[in-house]
Amino acid sequence: MFIRNCWYVIAWDHEIGPDTLFTRTVLGEPLLVLRRADGSLAAMLDRCCHRLAPLSCGQREGDAVRCGYHGLKFDCAGQCIEVPGMARVPPHLKVRSYPVLTKNRWVFVWMGDPAAADETLLPDNFSNDHPGWCHQPGYMHYEVPYLLICDNLLDFSHLSYVHANTLGGSPEIARARQHIEPVRLPDGRPTGVKVTRRVPDVPPSPYWQSFRDGLEGRFERWFDYHFVLPGTLLMDSGGRPMDAPDDDSRTVRLHSCQTLTPETATSTHYFFQQSCQRRDFERAPDTVGRMYQTLVRAFHEDKDMISAQYRAILATPDLPMRPVPLFDGAVGQFRGLVSQWVDAERAAAAPAA
Amino acid sequence: MFIRNCWYVIAWDHEIGPDTLFTRTVLGEPLLVLRRADGSLAAMLDRCCHRLAPLSCGQREGDAVRCGYHGLKFDCAGQCIEVPGMARVPPHLKVRSYPVLTKNRWVFVWMGDPAAADETLLPDNFSNDHPGWCHQPGYMHYEVPYLLICDNLLDFSHLSYVHANTLGGSPEIARARQHIEPVRLPDGRPTGVKVTRRVPDVPPSPYWQSFRDGLEGRFERWFDYHFVLPGTLLMDSGGRPMDAPDDDSRTVRLHSCQTLTPETATSTHYFFQQSCQRRDFERAPDTVGRMYQTLVRAFHEDKDMISAQYRAILATPDLPMRPVPLFDGAVGQFRGLVSQWVDAERAAAAPAA
Amino acid sequence: MFIRNCWYVIAWDHEIGPDTLFTRTVLGEPLLVLRRADGSLAAMLDRCCHRLAPLSCGQREGDAVRCGYHGLKFDCAGQCIEVPGMARVPPHLKVRSYPVLTKNRWVFVWMGDPAAADETLLPDNFSNDHPGWCHQPGYMHYEVPYLLICDNLLDFSHLSYVHANTLGGSPEIARARQHIEPVRLPDGRPTGVKVTRRVPDVPPSPYWQSFRDGLEGRFERWFDYHFVLPGTLLMDSGGRPMDAPDDDSRTVRLHSCQTLTPETATSTHYFFQQSCQRRDFERAPDTVGRMYQTLVRAFHEDKDMISAQYRAILATPDLPMRPVPLFDGAVGQFRGLVSQWVDAERAAAAPAA
Repeated sequence: MFIRNCWYVIAWDHEIGPDTLFTRTVLGEPLLVLRRADGSLAAMLDRCCHRLAPLSCGQREGDAVRCGYHGLKFDCAGQCIEVPGMARVPPHLKVRSYPVLTKNRWVFVWMGDPAAADETLLPDNFSNDHPGWCHQPGYMHYEVPYLLICDNLLDFSHLSYVHANTLGGSPEIARARQHIEPVRLPDGRPTGVKVTRRVPDVPPSPYWQSFRDGLEGRFERWFDYHFVLPGTLLMDSGGRPMDAPDDDSRTVRLHSCQTLTPETATSTHYFFQQSCQRRDFERAPDTVGRMYQTLVRAFHEDKDMISAQYRAILATPDLPMRPVPLFDGAVGQFRGLVSQWVDAERAAAAPAA
Repeated sequence: MFIRNCWYVIAWDHEIGPDTLFTRTVLGEPLLVLRRADGSLAAMLDRCCHRLAPLSCGQREGDAVRCGYHGLKFDCAGQCIEVPGMARVPPHLKVRSYPVLTKNRWVFVWMGDPAAADETLLPDNFSNDHPGWCHQPGYMHYEVPYLLICDNLLDFSHLSYVHANTLGGSPEIARARQHIEPVRLPDGRPTGVKVTRRVPDVPPSPYWQSFRDGLEGRFERWFDYHFVLPGTLLMDSGGRPMDAPDDDSRTVRLHSCQTLTPETATSTHYFFQQSCQRRDFERAPDTVGRMYQTLVRAFHEDKDMISAQYRAILATPDLPMRPVPLFDGAVGQFRGLVSQWVDAERAAAAPAA
Repeated sequence: MFIRNCWYVIAWDHEIGPDTLFTRTVLGEPLLVLRRADGSLAAMLDRCCHRLAPLSCGQREGDAVRCGYHGLKFDCAGQCIEVPGMARVPPHLKVRSYPVLTKNRWVFVWMGDPAAADETLLPDNFSNDHPGWCHQPGYMHYEVPYLLICDNLLDFSHLSYVHANTLGGSPEIARARQHIEPVRLPDGRPTGVKVTRRVPDVPPSPYWQSFRDGLEGRFERWFDYHFVLPGTLLMDSGGRPMDAPDDDSRTVRLHSCQTLTPETATSTHYFFQQSCQRRDFERAPDTVGRMYQTLVRAFHEDKDMISAQYRAILATPDLPMRPVPLFDGAVGQFRGLVSQWVDAERAAAAPAA
C-alpha cells in the first residue's frame, strides 16, 4: 500500500536532542530514534523483542537503551547486549533497525530493504539549509491519508478558493493553465511531476502583503515546482510587477520545501518551510516570522478542507470522484506513479515469498 | 434496511434560513438544503462530485452553491454550471438532488425514486400549523436506531414507569388494555396502526399539573393515536373528570405530532410538538412554555432509558427479547410493516439489477 | 476464551450496600448483585428479558427488582413474578442467575454451570479478614486483557525496573533465580504455580521505608507466592537484616491477596490488598495508610507500563514475543494452565452441543 524503498522524512534535525528517546510512527511502524554521543543517528523499532513494551518507556544508557519493563539492554543496531542475570545474550534477541540520515536539516529513514538504501533518491531540499535563504521550520499532523494531501499540493487551482484571503487572492489562479511534465531519475525512471503555472495581471497575494510592505499594482505570478516520490514539493514561486524586469526591487521570490510522510494508512506527518531571500530578511528581520504566521494560517485552511473531504469520503464511501481534466492532470499522474512503484515492489517481493 | 420511497422530515421550516447552507444527514446520506430567493426549497447531496468535498464548506451565490475547494458551481437541481477556466461544463458533473417540500412547518424529503414521490403519503400533521392549536416546536438527537424509539411510542405501558413523575402518574396506564387496528392508505395498503387506550379513575398527570392549575380529583384519560410509516405519531390525548361531560371546563385536550427520521443506522432525529387548545393559551399565555419544559423533561426520561437499552443490546448482542403480548402488539405489527415495505422495495429493485 | 467453571471476584463486600442495585461486568456479562434483607447476596444478568433494558435502571422492591421500562418484576432467582396487567406470569420470563458468595470480604461469582459450583476451588485469601493482619482494600480498573497483568505478577524481575523507586530498589531482584513448582488441587489437578525468590544482601526497599522508620543496612528479601486460577496472587513477602534471626525486630513481614477478574476480553478488574502484621499497626497506626499510598503508586507504575505494552501490541499486532527463559518460566506455565482448562471446558461442552 505504501512505497517502502524510499526515504521518508521522520523529523526536523532539531527535534532529536542528544539524550532523548525520540519516537515517531512511519508507515504504521513506531520508530525510536537516538542521537549517539558522536552526533550521528540510529533508528530502530520502538518495541522490546521480549514482551513488546515500547523501548521509549525505558532509559538511555550511553548509546544504548534499556527496556523499562524487565531491563533488557539494546545497542544502536537493535542488538540485545544485556539480559539481567544472564551471562550470555542469545543472538536472536534483537530489534529491527532502519537506515537513517540527515540532509539539509531533514532526518530521513529508509523503510525498505536496508541493502537497497540509495542516497541518490534524496530530494534537493537545499533551501532548508542555505546561506541565501531564511525560513522558520514547520510541522503539522493530519488525520487523513497522505495521498489526499498530495492531491492538494498537485492542484493549485484550490488557491483561488481555499486560500482566497491568504496564498491566493484571485480567481485567475484557478483559471490559468498548468503545464505538466515528468521528472526522472538519472536512470530514466519517473519519480514525479514538474508543474508550472503562470498567472499574469493579478493583484499581489494577501500572503506577500503580510510580510512585505508597499506592494501594489498588478503582478505576474509564477508557481514552478517538482513534486516527487514519496511526497515532496520543491517550489520556486513569486511574482513581479507586470512589464518590470526580473530584478525589479518589488519582485517577490520564494523557495519552499514541503514533504508528506504517512504515519499510518489514515494519518500523515507534514514537514514544511517557505523561505524568503536573505536580502529580504536583512531589510526586515521580522519577515520570516510574518511569513510563517500567514503560511500556518493558510495551511490550516487546507487542513480544514482536506479533513472535511476525508470525513465526507468515510461517511459516503461508495461515491465516485469525477475527474476534471483541467485540474487533475498532475494528481492523476502522481497517483499513477505511486501505484506503479507499489506494484513493482509487490512483484519483486512475490518470488521470494 | 430503510424504506426509501417515503417522506422523511429533515427539519422544522424555521431552521432553514434564506442564505444558509443547511445540512442534515438522512438514511446515512448527508443532504444540503437551500432556500431559493423565491422561498422554495431545494435538496441535494452535500458532496461536490469532483473530489467529494462537502458543498456546505463552500458558499451561496444566489440560488447556486460554489464548492470551497476548487470552485465548481452547482444549481439547485445539482447540475454543475461552472468550472473555473472551462468554457463548457461536462454534463456528467452533477450531484444527486432530492424532492423536498414543506407541509405544516415540517420539511420533508423523499429519499427514494424521485419519479415515485407521492404527496398523498404525507401525514396529517395539522396541529403543527393550525389556528386552534398552540405549541413550541421541539427537536432531539438520539444515538440509537430509530426502531427502538418507535417501539417506545408504540407501547404506552412505559408511561407508568419511565414517566411516573411526568406524563404518567399511575400504574393503571400500564394495566389498561390497548386496542389496536390497522391504518390503511386509500389504495388499501396498510401504513401503520391506530392505538386506543382508555384509563379510567386515575389522578391527573403530573404533566397536566405543570401547565394547568387547579386540577384535582379522578379523571378518565385517553390516548388515541395513529403511528404511521416511516415513523410518525399523530395523537389526540387528554382526560376529563370522571362522570363529567366531554365539554367540562376541567377537561384537558391535547394534540401531538412527533416523527422519527433515521440519521444513520444507529442515530435518529426526533421532531416533536404537543399542542394545547388556543383557549388554554388565551387563558394562560405561559401554558405553551410550561408544557414544553415538562415534555422535554419527559422525553429525556425516554432518551435515558432507550439509550441504556441500546447500550445493553450492543454489549450483549446475542440475548433474545421475550415479547409480552399484552404490551407488544402494536410494536410487532409496526415492525412487521416496516419489514414488508423494505422487502417489497428490495424485490422491486431486484429485476432491474 | 475464559475459564467459566471457577470463582471470579466481583467486588469487595463493602461495595454492595443493603438497598443498592450493584452492577459489574464479568467475562463480558453485565451482572446485577443484590443484598437481600437477610444479608445474603443474589446475582443475575443485568437485563430485563422483555426488551433488554438494564434492570439496574429500575428499582428495588424488597428482595425483588422492578424494571424501569415497562414494570416487569423479578425475584432474586431471576424469575419474573409480576407483569403489570397480567393475572399470570409466563414461566419463560426469567433472567439468568449466578451462584454468588462471600469469603474473607471478597464477593465471588461462579460464571459456569451452577450445578458445578465448587467451594473447594475458593482461594485461601485469609489475610483479607484476619485478626493478625491489617490492610486497606484496593481496586483498580485496567483497559488491558487480564493475562497481560497475570504475566506481570508472574515475573517479579520487573520490580528492579518498573518499581526501582517503590517496591524494588535494586537490580539484584531481576538477577535472582526464581524457583517454580506446581500448585495442585486435592484431586491432583494443577491449579497454579508456587514461585519462590530469595534476594540476599540488598538495601531495604523504598516501599518499606515509606511506612517503617529506621530501616538501614543490608537485608535478605523473600517473595513466596502462589498464583492460582483464575488469576489470584497469595503472597508472603518481606526481609530481614542479613545474619539476623527471623524474629529480629527490624524484620518486615507482609501478606498480600490480589486477584484479577476479566471484565471483557480487553479490560480487567484488579482487587488487591497488602497487609502488615497487627503489631506493626499497633506500633504505628499510620502504617496501613502509608503502605496503601505507596502500593497504589507502585501499581500505577505497573498500569502505565502494561497499558503501554498493550497499546504497543495493538498497534503492531504481528510482532512475535521472544521468551527469555530466565524470566518467563512461571508466565509460560500459568498461560499453559489457562489454555488447558479452557480447552477442557470446550471439549466437555462439545458432545452436548
